[in-house]
Amino acid sequence: MGVMTRTPPPSPLDPAIAARLKRSTDGLVPAIAQQYDTGEVLMLGWMNDEALHRTLTTGRCTYWSRSRQEYWVKGDTSGHVQHVKSVALDCDADTVLVKVDQVGAACHTGARTCFDADVIKSAVSGEDAASAEDAGSDVPPLGQ
Amino acid sequence: MGVMTRTPPPSPLDPAIAARLKRSTDGLVPAIAQQYDTGEVLMLGWMNDEALHRTLTTGRCTYWSRSRQEYWVKGDTSGHVQHVKSVALDCDADTVLVKVDQVGAACHTGARTCFDADVIKSAVSGEDAASAEDAGSDVPPLGQ
Repeated sequence: MGVMTRTPPPSPLDPAIAARLKRSTDGLVPAIAQQYDTGEVLMLGWMNDEALHRTLTTGRCTYWSRSRQEYWVKGDTSGHVQHVKSVALDCDADTVLVKVDQVGAACHTGARTCFDADVIKSAVSGEDAASAEDAGSDVPPLGQ
Repeated sequence: MGVMTRTPPPSPLDPAIAARLKRSTDGLVPAIAQQYDTGEVLMLGWMNDEALHRTLTTGRCTYWSRSRQEYWVKGDTSGHVQHVKSVALDCDADTVLVKVDQVGAACHTGARTCFDADVIKSAVSGEDAASAEDAGSDVPPLGQ
């Protein structure tokens, strides 16, 4: 594994995509995984060119682990794989949205999504009310 | 505007949240904006402690613009505001999911979401088929 530089490593990623991808200084872009049919936002991971290439060509969501500094095929150890349904770049080409079919839990905690457990504010009546904490009750909402 | 450092700037953000927030080296966390009722992923922005605090306390989604190096209250110039419905951290506390009620278009291009225009792969039958390009047809899907 080489030292990460600002120049993307050589990758077989489609040059037309590589040319417009806008990477952070660490060569990565955030990748949002969304359950394709329910719309649940499952998790956010990071991709370099090679991870995006593998995601596009293998049908399995593949990330770059910043903590382990290695490729991470989601589900390879847990069985909780993400089958890729579609991949889109955003308008600035600096974020990836991957619609997937998630097998089992997306989160390593066993929760369906990585955003289930830590709701810090909820103003949706009836939604998340049980786990909501009001983090700013002293300031009234503006413009509502 | 001071120089960005790895130490988060003083902010009235709830200390209990600030203590567990894991920021990138630029002091930011990615923030996913999702339409609360339809589940559409609208855009991804960036928040520092103060932007998260403002998002939690004003009811309006507020980001830190990396390009302009300034706070950005979504919709202040376009009118396309995001009314905050709920805010959650992920399991690692390094990503924010904000469920919002988006007025009008989330994207500066006028598209409803920032991910509408640039679908680079679609394998969802009937979905996005018109704009799909097959970016990796030479490699068959694995494990499907």
